[in-house]
Amino acid sequence: MAINRTATPLIDAPRGLAGVVVTETEIGDVRGREGFYHYRQYSAVELAQTRGFEDVWHLLVHGTLPDAPRRAAFTAETSALRRLPEGVRAALPAIASASRLSGPLSGLRTALSLLGSARELRPVYDIDPDRRRADTVAVCAAVPTLLTALYRLGQGLDPVEPREDLPYAANYLYMLDGREPDPRRARAVEQYLISTIDHGFNASTFTARVIASTGADVAACLTGAVGALSGPLHGGAPSRALDTLDAIGTPDRIDAWIRERVLAGERIMGFGHAVYRTEDPRSRMLREIALGFGGPRVDFAVEVERRVEAILTELKPGRELHTNVEFYAGVVMELCGLPREMFTPTFAAARVVGWSANILEQAADSKIIRPVARYVGPEPAAAVPALR
Amino acid sequence: MAINRTATPLIDAPRGLAGVVVTETEIGDVRGREGFYHYRQYSAVELAQTRGFEDVWHLLVHGTLPDAPRRAAFTAETSALRRLPEGVRAALPAIASASRLSGPLSGLRTALSLLGSARELRPVYDIDPDRRRADTVAVCAAVPTLLTALYRLGQGLDPVEPREDLPYAANYLYMLDGREPDPRRARAVEQYLISTIDHGFNASTFTARVIASTGADVAACLTGAVGALSGPLHGGAPSRALDTLDAIGTPDRIDAWIRERVLAGERIMGFGHAVYRTEDPRSRMLREIALGFGGPRVDFAVEVERRVEAILTELKPGRELHTNVEFYAGVVMELCGLPREMFTPTFAAARVVGWSANILEQAADSKIIRPVARYVGPEPAAAVPALR
Repeated sequence: MAINRTATPLIDAPRGLAGVVVTETEIGDVRGREGFYHYRQYSAVELAQTRGFEDVWHLLVHGTLPDAPRRAAFTAETSALRRLPEGVRAALPAIASASRLSGPLSGLRTALSLLGSARELRPVYDIDPDRRRADTVAVCAAVPTLLTALYRLGQGLDPVEPREDLPYAANYLYMLDGREPDPRRARAVEQYLISTIDHGFNASTFTARVIASTGADVAACLTGAVGALSGPLHGGAPSRALDTLDAIGTPDRIDAWIRERVLAGERIMGFGHAVYRTEDPRSRMLREIALGFGGPRVDFAVEVERRVEAILTELKPGRELHTNVEFYAGVVMELCGLPREMFTPTFAAARVVGWSANILEQAADSKIIRPVARYVGPEPAAAVPALR
Repeated sequence: MAINRTATPLIDAPRGLAGVVVTETEIGDVRGREGFYHYRQYSAVELAQTRGFEDVWHLLVHGTLPDAPRRAAFTAETSALRRLPEGVRAALPAIASASRLSGPLSGLRTALSLLGSARELRPVYDIDPDRRRADTVAVCAAVPTLLTALYRLGQGLDPVEPREDLPYAANYLYMLDGREPDPRRARAVEQYLISTIDHGFNASTFTARVIASTGADVAACLTGAVGALSGPLHGGAPSRALDTLDAIGTPDRIDAWIRERVLAGERIMGFGHAVYRTEDPRSRMLREIALGFGGPRVDFAVEVERRVEAILTELKPGRELHTNVEFYAGVVMELCGLPREMFTPTFAAARVVGWSANILEQAADSKIIRPVARYVGPEPAAAVPALR
């Protein structure tokens, strides 16, 4: 339960483990200088442009892109798992009510944990790799059902039962408002979801792997990851970029608004990324999708992007600052009719697949992740003082 | 959301981050060679022998042992928080039913998450230190209520409402079976709980800190930690040591049973510890408590301990193998009337306080914990293959 401090030499790590290689991975890689990231050697953007969500999900957890028969089998398997166990469905109104003010991620955290219990998931070290993968698939398949049910219950509406005949993204939109989405909206959301499944190491992925390293069940890992994702430092809140568009309001106010913020040293939400020195490849794809929809909102977003880049180039020369994934992700999700409070949950509905791939990779290692802490407080006292 | 791989030099860490110092701490320290551990400079065993649970809880989260007025105020504060919000209470039957077969920790994971939502906990980085501490206290105070309610519901019994006039441990036992416990049992459980609040760094404590480092709320951190605790590699299952006693059965079978296991290279549950080279200080304290109760079960446990140590000394000379905390913790919890499936949950009812101290310390740092992974898969492919 604790560390063998006598046998292992201590190594001082940089604060926050920055730059510390904690594991090897075959899941993917982000190449910041090239403006490129991939899943298991395939460009994530190209996957989003040419494949369906189920194909990429299969790639992540099975390790290969499916051929047509495997795609059909995997689609049938995952579609059938969208329906919730009765015990979970019965508890959702209580969860929606309790998490009414604390946000949909806190509701998802509870519902995922409950689903794991109801599915009687077993510790990952006690089961074989096929069963582990099946556990991740069973939980991920139900995430859109949980999210949309919690959202609708929060709005005073009845949940919409999943449909097995629709692809993952289309069924997600269908369960959200009860109407079959038009194919363009469904495809836009699907492309966003594919591009969001994984993106290098981050705190939620690491959390999932730490929990998996103890051998805990898949729901324990995913529940912890959702908790980490809910932290403000984790980042990834596409609704903030829309808040920027709203705050600016009209094209004539762009320059004054941006200059004021930049000169005050404030960050402009939706711009700048820690990894990419070039344009974020996700931004480029999502901008194209938005331009395909067109309309005044898209024109305004493009104009804000153009002016922000120009002003940043003028005021902060030498710094390459482009839109990050949040900016056009927000625009695209708005165009597709998603309510803002569902932007981050929608992100989670894709990222659970990336976490799952990481859990499976970690579980194959069977070594607990357990660093140490250095005690820096006062030396032990001679005795516990008596109560005064 | 991802790592700045260009600016930070990569550092290869040992597998599982073994020996990697991830943080400094003032919470406590385990000194394996001295057979000693402490909380904020006070011997944990001496605290268990001389203080009440609320005193030590105050020490962990406020940083100081309380004087008499502060103890009274803290006891009143925590006792009042034992009662569950109505929305949580209403959902417990569904949670108990769903987690009927997956164990009480999976029920606790869901219930803690739900309680956090119902209490509308906010991200730790968005609130001041007093509010953060209050959030941890509100969640910890309700853990015995959640655990005992889930246990009783699982047995087909109604939950017992908490009493504010009983100390933490006595109220826990009271809620478990509806009868006020005799003072010796209550005190024995209280001493066990105090000795279990913290014990060096481990995977659940680290999980709580990783989640806290994103700024997520206290319930997100504790929910993740419960998930990590449920992993078989995390360790800490006092019921396994009792299973050893049961398997041996009678004193005349001790030698044959132990020799067979040791010669087959099997581990004897309840013996051996990664840190302590001397006797585990918790074992010593818990053995004394058990001897205070007396009876044939205790005599048998002491005889098993004596024979195992003798046989191990004979068969594995030079290795100091003593009972670990699980051995006499199991014996003491059994003597106090706790059902075996509640042993690990009882451990969790103490450890939440230790996790809380770690969450508060981490939240004061405000640096996200985010290591990196090294991609070792094949080089990116030229194109995504078409569906075959």
